Amino acid sequence: MSERRVEHDAFGPIDVPADRYWGAQTQRALRVFDVGEERFPVALIRAFALQKIAALRANVRLGSITPSIAGPIEQAATELHEGRFDAHFPLTIWQTGSGTQTNMNVNEVIANRANELLGQPLGARSPVHPNDHVNCSQSSNDSFPTVMHLVTALMLRDALLPALAGLRDELAAKAVAFADIVKIGRTHLMDAVPMTMGQAFDAFARQIGNGIDRIGATLPRLHVLSQGGTAVGSGLNAPAGFDAAFCAELSRLTGIDFIPNPSKFEGMGAHDALVEVSGALNGLAVSLLKIANDIRLLGSGPRCGLGEIVIPHDGLTSSIMPGKRNPTVAEVVAQVAFQVIGNHATVTAAAASGHFELNVAKPVLIYNVLQSIRLLADGSRMFADRLVRDLDVDRRQLASDVANALLLATALNPVLGYDKVSQITTKALADNTTPRQAAIALGFITGDQYDSLVDPRQMAGLERAEAR
Amino acid sequence: MSERRVEHDAFGPIDVPADRYWGAQTQRALRVFDVGEERFPVALIRAFALQKIAALRANVRLGSITPSIAGPIEQAATELHEGRFDAHFPLTIWQTGSGTQTNMNVNEVIANRANELLGQPLGARSPVHPNDHVNCSQSSNDSFPTVMHLVTALMLRDALLPALAGLRDELAAKAVAFADIVKIGRTHLMDAVPMTMGQAFDAFARQIGNGIDRIGATLPRLHVLSQGGTAVGSGLNAPAGFDAAFCAELSRLTGIDFIPNPSKFEGMGAHDALVEVSGALNGLAVSLLKIANDIRLLGSGPRCGLGEIVIPHDGLTSSIMPGKRNPTVAEVVAQVAFQVIGNHATVTAAAASGHFELNVAKPVLIYNVLQSIRLLADGSRMFADRLVRDLDVDRRQLASDVANALLLATALNPVLGYDKVSQITTKALADNTTPRQAAIALGFITGDQYDSLVDPRQMAGLERAEAR
Amino acid sequence: MSERRVEHDAFGPIDVPADRYWGAQTQRALRVFDVGEERFPVALIRAFALQKIAALRANVRLGSITPSIAGPIEQAATELHEGRFDAHFPLTIWQTGSGTQTNMNVNEVIANRANELLGQPLGARSPVHPNDHVNCSQSSNDSFPTVMHLVTALMLRDALLPALAGLRDELAAKAVAFADIVKIGRTHLMDAVPMTMGQAFDAFARQIGNGIDRIGATLPRLHVLSQGGTAVGSGLNAPAGFDAAFCAELSRLTGIDFIPNPSKFEGMGAHDALVEVSGALNGLAVSLLKIANDIRLLGSGPRCGLGEIVIPHDGLTSSIMPGKRNPTVAEVVAQVAFQVIGNHATVTAAAASGHFELNVAKPVLIYNVLQSIRLLADGSRMFADRLVRDLDVDRRQLASDVANALLLATALNPVLGYDKVSQITTKALADNTTPRQAAIALGFITGDQYDSLVDPRQMAGLERAEAR
Amino acid sequence: MSERRVEHDAFGPIDVPADRYWGAQTQRALRVFDVGEERFPVALIRAFALQKIAALRANVRLGSITPSIAGPIEQAATELHEGRFDAHFPLTIWQTGSGTQTNMNVNEVIANRANELLGQPLGARSPVHPNDHVNCSQSSNDSFPTVMHLVTALMLRDALLPALAGLRDELAAKAVAFADIVKIGRTHLMDAVPMTMGQAFDAFARQIGNGIDRIGATLPRLHVLSQGGTAVGSGLNAPAGFDAAFCAELSRLTGIDFIPNPSKFEGMGAHDALVEVSGALNGLAVSLLKIANDIRLLGSGPRCGLGEIVIPHDGLTSSIMPGKRNPTVAEVVAQVAFQVIGNHATVTAAAASGHFELNVAKPVLIYNVLQSIRLLADGSRMFADRLVRDLDVDRRQLASDVANALLLATALNPVLGYDKVSQITTKALADNTTPRQAAIALGFITGDQYDSLVDPRQMAGLERAEAR
Repeated sequence: MSERRVEHDAFGPIDVPADRYWGAQTQRALRVFDVGEERFPVALIRAFALQKIAALRANVRLGSITPSIAGPIEQAATELHEGRFDAHFPLTIWQTGSGTQTNMNVNEVIANRANELLGQPLGARSPVHPNDHVNCSQSSNDSFPTVMHLVTALMLRDALLPALAGLRDELAAKAVAFADIVKIGRTHLMDAVPMTMGQAFDAFARQIGNGIDRIGATLPRLHVLSQGGTAVGSGLNAPAGFDAAFCAELSRLTGIDFIPNPSKFEGMGAHDALVEVSGALNGLAVSLLKIANDIRLLGSGPRCGLGEIVIPHDGLTSSIMPGKRNPTVAEVVAQVAFQVIGNHATVTAAAASGHFELNVAKPVLIYNVLQSIRLLADGSRMFADRLVRDLDVDRRQLASDVANALLLATALNPVLGYDKVSQITTKALADNTTPRQAAIALGFITGDQYDSLVDPRQMAGLERAEAR
Repeated sequence: MSERRVEHDAFGPIDVPADRYWGAQTQRALRVFDVGEERFPVALIRAFALQKIAALRANVRLGSITPSIAGPIEQAATELHEGRFDAHFPLTIWQTGSGTQTNMNVNEVIANRANELLGQPLGARSPVHPNDHVNCSQSSNDSFPTVMHLVTALMLRDALLPALAGLRDELAAKAVAFADIVKIGRTHLMDAVPMTMGQAFDAFARQIGNGIDRIGATLPRLHVLSQGGTAVGSGLNAPAGFDAAFCAELSRLTGIDFIPNPSKFEGMGAHDALVEVSGALNGLAVSLLKIANDIRLLGSGPRCGLGEIVIPHDGLTSSIMPGKRNPTVAEVVAQVAFQVIGNHATVTAAAASGHFELNVAKPVLIYNVLQSIRLLADGSRMFADRLVRDLDVDRRQLASDVANALLLATALNPVLGYDKVSQITTKALADNTTPRQAAIALGFITGDQYDSLVDPRQMAGLERAEAR
Repeated sequence: MSERRVEHDAFGPIDVPADRYWGAQTQRALRVFDVGEERFPVALIRAFALQKIAALRANVRLGSITPSIAGPIEQAATELHEGRFDAHFPLTIWQTGSGTQTNMNVNEVIANRANELLGQPLGARSPVHPNDHVNCSQSSNDSFPTVMHLVTALMLRDALLPALAGLRDELAAKAVAFADIVKIGRTHLMDAVPMTMGQAFDAFARQIGNGIDRIGATLPRLHVLSQGGTAVGSGLNAPAGFDAAFCAELSRLTGIDFIPNPSKFEGMGAHDALVEVSGALNGLAVSLLKIANDIRLLGSGPRCGLGEIVIPHDGLTSSIMPGKRNPTVAEVVAQVAFQVIGNHATVTAAAASGHFELNVAKPVLIYNVLQSIRLLADGSRMFADRLVRDLDVDRRQLASDVANALLLATALNPVLGYDKVSQITTKALADNTTPRQAAIALGFITGDQYDSLVDPRQMAGLERAEAR
Repeated sequence: MSERRVEHDAFGPIDVPADRYWGAQTQRALRVFDVGEERFPVALIRAFALQKIAALRANVRLGSITPSIAGPIEQAATELHEGRFDAHFPLTIWQTGSGTQTNMNVNEVIANRANELLGQPLGARSPVHPNDHVNCSQSSNDSFPTVMHLVTALMLRDALLPALAGLRDELAAKAVAFADIVKIGRTHLMDAVPMTMGQAFDAFARQIGNGIDRIGATLPRLHVLSQGGTAVGSGLNAPAGFDAAFCAELSRLTGIDFIPNPSKFEGMGAHDALVEVSGALNGLAVSLLKIANDIRLLGSGPRCGLGEIVIPHDGLTSSIMPGKRNPTVAEVVAQVAFQVIGNHATVTAAAASGHFELNVAKPVLIYNVLQSIRLLADGSRMFADRLVRDLDVDRRQLASDVANALLLATALNPVLGYDKVSQITTKALADNTTPRQAAIALGFITGDQYDSLVDPRQMAGLERAEAR
C-alpha cells in the first residue's frame, strides 16, 4: 500500500514506511508487540530529546563524540524536543520492560534525521549510528529511568504544582469569603456544634497546601538520576565523569538541579523514587476525595438535601429529569481520585517486581505516574475554575440549621457539668423542643443565663478570634 | 525459670518447656522468628487436626500406617481438633512461607501426645515419629494448602454464609415493612423522583443475596485439594490413590464434598482459588460500604441532616457533646470493609509471588483471607442485630420532602415533552415555588391535570404494583 | 475557523462544528470538561447503538414510539453500530459520573442522523427528539449501566475468552510435548525432587483453564440488566413490561441471554457485578504473573541462569549489549498484570462510592474494566503466539541438574526413615558429593539398593503413570 | 460468676466486673461491639496516658483544673503509661470510628484510679469525673487523632528507624566485604556484563537509607497535632492557648517537637498525614521485596540454582525432604511486605472516607499504620540479624559464571562498533563458544587485543575505582 524503504540492524534488513524516521528495531517491535492502545504522552518523548541533548553535550565535552557529527545530532534532537517528530513514535507502552524499544525509536529517529541533515538518505546509519553515536555512553537501562525522573519532575513543576496552587488559592479565597458565616459542624455525619463555613474551606485549602509540601518532599530523591550507569549500573563504556557532566547539562537545559545517583544500580534495579512520588499523588487523591465529597454533600438538594452550599450550574442536565442540576465537576474529581489510587497500586506492584540490575516494568510504571499527574493537574484546575470559584452558600438554610441544633447545649458543660447537659439534650430530643426550653424546664438555668452562655458565633470561635 | 525437657530432631537436641507438647522444630522456629504478634485463628489449628485424621485414615486404608499406632494418633488428633492443645501453638504467622513450622508443630504435638498415650515420655519420637508417621504420605507443601482450603470452606459455611443470610433477611424484612413509604430518590446526591423506602432496602437485601451467590460461585474451585502432591506436586512417597482416599475421608468428616486437584502442582505453586474467594469478599466489602454509607447518610441529623431514618440508640455517646448519638455500628461495618479491601490487596500481592512448585506466602495469605471472613461474618451479624433490625423511618420528614420535591414534574414528560418540563422545573427552582405552580403559571397545564398526572405514589411504582 | 451550525437544548442555543452530528449537550460538556485524554473504546459506543436499537424495538412493540419515526431511528442506530459515527464522540471519560453526556451524545447523533434521513437539517430536533424519542422510556441512569454490562459481556465473549482458550491450549500442548522430560522441581526457590517439565506446563494450562471458569462464574450476574429502571430504578415513564421486552430484543441482537434485574435500584446504585468481573480479571492477572515469572526465570541465562527453557528470539535486543536476547513478551504480560491489578483497585474504590440511587463513578469504572479485558486478551494472545508456541527446553541442562540434585535421597524416606535420610543429605552437601556416595559412606545402604530405590523418572511420577 | 460492681453514666447504671477499672461507657461498648479480636497495641494505650498527662498539665497551667485533683490524676495516668492497667482495655479496634470508646476507657480508668487514690470507691465519678476532668478541654475527636500521631511518631523513632539503620548498616558492611568480588550482572533476568557483589549490596543499603530519608520527610506533618480542636475543630470549651500549652508539655514528655495544627479541622476531618506515613511504609515494603527476592534468587540452589550466595542455615527444614534448607527469613520479609502493601490500601480507603468535621475510620486506620510499623521494624531487624549478617558468597560459582559470560564482548563496542560486536555474540551463542573465540574467528581482533580490552574486573569498575 504505502511506500516502503529498507532499514537494517544487526539482525538484517526490514521494510519501513518510507516517510517515517524510525528504523529497524522500532519496526521489529511493531511486529512483535500488538497489545492495547496506551501510548506514552508526548511529554515523555520530548523529555527524551532533552536527555539525548544533554548526553551529546557531555560526550562532546569528554571527547566521546566528535564535534563534526554533534551539530546535526543536536539539531535533530532539538527538532524532536520541539514536537516535529511526535508522529514517529508508533509503539504503545506494552513493550520490553526496560523501555528499550522507545529508546531505540528515539535513537533511530535522531540518527535518521541527523544523517538527513548531513545529506544521507534515511536508513543510512552513517555517519551517525543510532547505537554508537546517539546512544553513545548510554544504555536504555540508564537512559530510560533518567527520562522517567526527568519527565516526572517537569510535569510536577509545570503542570501539577501550579494547578494545585490555583486550587489551594481558590479554596483559601472561599475561606476568607465565608469567614463569618456560622453553620453547624457535623461529626459521625450527625449534628454537632457551631463552626464557620470559612473554617471548612480553610481546612480544604490546607489539605491541598500540605499536598504541595508532600510533593516537594519527594523531589530530593526524584532529582537524582541514573544516567552514567549504562548497562548494569557500573558505567561500562561511558567515560569517567559522564554522569556529572550529563547532570550539569540537563540542569542547564531545564532549570532543575539534577544530581547523579551515587549508586546507579539502585536507580536502575529499583524505582523507589517513583513509588514515593506516586505515594504523594495517592495522598492528593485522598484529599481531593474528601473535599469533593464534602462539597457534593453540602450542596445536596435543592430541597431534600443538606443545601448548605450552591454549586454553580454548568449547563448540563439529566436525560430524563428536565432541569436537574448535578455536581458534575466534583464527580470528575472523585473519579480522577479513584484512578490515581488504582494507579498507585499498579506502580507499587510494578516497582516491587524488579530483579537484580533492572526493574523491567518501567513502561507501565511511568505511564501510570504520568497519567496520575496529568489527571490530578487537569482535575484540580477544573475543580478550581468551574466549581470552587463560583460556589456560594445558602445563608437561609445555614441560619435555620443553627437555630434548630441540639448540641448548642455543649457550651453549658463548663458551668453545669457533662451529666446535666446530657439530661438537657436528651430531653430536648425526646420532646422535640430546643435545648434552651429543655434546660429551663429541667430547672438547671434561666433563659437569660442560657442566652449569655450559648452563643453560636462565639462557639464557632468568631468572637474569640475577633477579641484577639 | 520454668522447667525444661530435651527434644531432638535431625539437627540435634534442644530445650523445650517441660509442659508443652511441641517439639524441636517448633522450638527452633521460636528462636529464629521474632516478628509481630499475629497468630492463626484456632480454627486453622483445629482444621489441621481434621487434615491429619483424614490423612491417617487414608494411610491405614492404603497400608502405609500400621493400625497399632493409628489409634493413638487419631485420638491425639481428635483431642487437638477439640481444642485441648490450642495453647501449644506458640508461633506467629511470620514463619516460612510454606507454613512448614505450623505443620511440624501439629506433627510434633500429635506425635508427643500419641506417644504419651502409648506410655512414652514427651520427646520420645517413638513409636510415633512426627515426620515418618504423623506426616506420612504428606509434606507441608501439600498439607498446608489443603488446610488453607479446608478452614476457608468451613468458615465460609459455618460463619460467613449464615451471617450474610441473617443480614439479607433483616434487610428484606425492612423492604417489606417500608414497602408503601414514599420518599424522594436521589441521583448524584441531588433530589430526583419518588420511590419507596422499601425499594431502597430491597436493593440492599439483593446486594447481600448476590454476595452469597458470589461466594457460592467460588466453591467449585475451593473444594479442590492439593493433598497427595507431597513435596512438589508429583506425589512422591505417597501411595497411589492417596489423594482420593484422603478426600473421601475428609468429606466424611466435614460434610463437604472435597475432590483432589487434578494438578497438585497448580494447587501448591499458586493460590488462585483463594484469590477468587478473596475477590468475593472484596465484593462484599464494596456492597457493605454502599449500604452502611446510605444508612448513615439517611439517618443523618437529627435536625440538620437528611433525617429519613432513625438509627436505634446503642447507649454510647460523645466524650464532649452530651447525649450525642452516632451510627457506631455502621461505622464498624465501614471499617471492616476497608480492612477487607486492603486484605484483598495483600492476598493479591502474596498470591502473585509464587515461584515454580511452591507459593511461599501461604501464612500471610491465609491469615488475611480468614481475617476477612471473620470480620465480615461478625460485622454482618452485628449490622443485622444491632442496627437494621430496630431501624425506623421518620414519616414526617419523608412526607415533607416528597411535598417539596421539584422533579415530580418528570411525570409530565410523556404529555408535555422534555423541553417544556425543563421550563417548569427551571422556573420553580428560580421562583422558589412548586412545580405545580410553575406549570400552571407557564400555561402548560391546569391544576387538575397536574394532579391527575403527578402522583408520587404512582411515580414510585406503588399503584402500578398494586394494580397488577 | 471551521464552519459552525447552531444546536439547541433546554438551556438555549450553542454553536457546534457544522460537520459533526452531536448536539447541544455534547457541546456544552466539551466546554465544561477538559481533563485527560482517556476515551471509551469504540466497542462501548457501538454497544450503545445496540442498546438504543433494543430500546426502540421494545418501545415500538409497547406502543411508546410510532413506527413512522422508528425506521429512521433504527437505521441511524445501525449505522452507529457499524462504526460510521465513531468520530462523533469527542468526550473523554472524565465527565458526569452517570455517563449522561455520552448517553446524550448517542441520543443526539442518532436524532440528528434520523432527522437527516427524514429530510431535516442537523439540529432540527424534530420529528425525532433526542430525549423524547431516542431516549424514550430510558434514562442515562439505566441505559449507561445496561451498556456497561453489555459491552463487558461482548468483550469477554468475543475477545478475552477466545484469547484465554488459545493460551490454555498452547500451554497444554507444551504439557504434552514435555511430558517425559524430567527436571528438578523447586520449592522455596531451592532444589527439591524430580518432576517433569510437562507437569509444570500442565499446571500453567490449568491456571488459565480455571481462569476461564472464573469468568464464566460471574456471567449469571453480569447478564442481568438495569434497563427499565429509568431515573431512579422505579421505571417511571417506561411502559409496563419494558424491561423484559428490552432484554428479549437485546438477546436477539447479541445471542446472549440477558434478563432484567429484579431490583433496578440494585443495578443502578451499585456495580457489584462489575466488581465481581474485575475480581476475576484480577485473578487472571495473578495467574499470568506466576506463569510469566516462572517462564522468565526458567529461561534465564543463557550461561549464568537456570537455563532450563529456551525462549524464542524476537529480533529485539539491547541498545548497548549487542546480540542480547530478552524475554520481552513475558515482560509485557507481567506489565499487563500490574495494570489489571491496579485497575481492580480503581474499580473497587469507584464501586464502593455510590450513594442512594446512583453510583456516579460509572465512566471510570467501565473504562478500567474494559481496559483490563482488552489488555488481558491482547496479552494472552501475544503470550501464546509469540512466546509459548515456539518455546523449547534445554535437555542437556535439565539432565545435568537431575544428576546433581541432592534431594533425590527423599525417595529413601519410606525405607530408611526421615532422620537417616537427613544425615545423608547433610553429609552430601557438606562433602560436595552425591547423596548416593553419602548414603553408602554412612553405611545405610548399598549402591545397588540406592539405584533401585532412587529413580528420578519414577520419582517424577513417570513410571507410575505409565504403569497405570 | 465473677463479682460485679455498679457504674453509672448519663444513661444510667450498668454492671461492671468488680476488679476492672473501666466504667459504664466501656462496659456498654462491650455489649454493643462483638467483632473480631484485633486490639490496639499497648503502645497506643500508653501513648494515650502521655496525652492525658500533657492535657492535664496544660489545664492546670491555664486554670481549667484545680491542683487538688491534678496530682491523683497525673499519678493515675503515669501508672497507666507504665503499663499497670494494660489489662483494663477490653475493647477491640472495631468500635466507633472516632475512637471514642477507647478515649472513654482511658478517661474511666484514670478517673477510677484517681478517685481510688483519693479514698473513693471505684465508680464514684467524684471528685474526679471522667468527662469533666480527665477529658477536660478535650474531645475524643481531637484527643484520638493526637494520640494517632503521637504513637506513630514514637514507634517510628523508637522501633522502625533504629531497625532500618541496623539493616542498612549490615547491608553496607556486605557491600564493603564483597567490594572486589566480580560477578555477572543481570538485566531482564538475562546475563549482562560484569559488576561486583559489593555494588549489589551497596544498592540494597542505599534503598534502605533512602527509606529512612522518606520516613524523615513525613515527620514535619506528623508532628502537627489536632489537640485543642475539641468537638469539631473550633476549640469549644477549651481555654485559649490550650493547643500550644499541650504541645509544649507533650514535647517535654517525649523529646519530640510537636506543634499545634493551624487548622484543627484539617487534622480531625482528614488523616492525610498518616496516609503520607503509610506511603513511606509502602515504599519500604517495595524496597524490602526487591532485596529479599534478589537474595533468595541469588541464593537459589544449592546445585540447580544461581548459587551465588550462601544463606546462613537456621536449623529449620522440610517436613518431607530431609536436610533441605530454605531462605525462611527472606520469606518472612516478603510476607511482611505484602501485608504492609495491603495495609496501605486499607489506610488509603479509610482516610478517603471522612465526611465533614470527622473522619470516622480512625481505629482501623491507626491499627494498620501501627501494624505496618511493627512488622517492618521486626522484619528488618530479623533480616539484618538472622540473614544478612552471616550471608556469604560462593566464589567458585561466581568465577565460573564470569568466565562463561557472553556479553563480556560489550567492552569491544568503543573499538569495533555495535554491529560487529553483535556478530561476535551471536556467533558465540550459536557455536557454544566464548566471545573471545568468536571474535578471533570472525577476524575482528586478535586474542591479545581481546585480552587487553576485555577485563571483567575493569568492566565492573574495579580498576577505574582503584585508579582514582
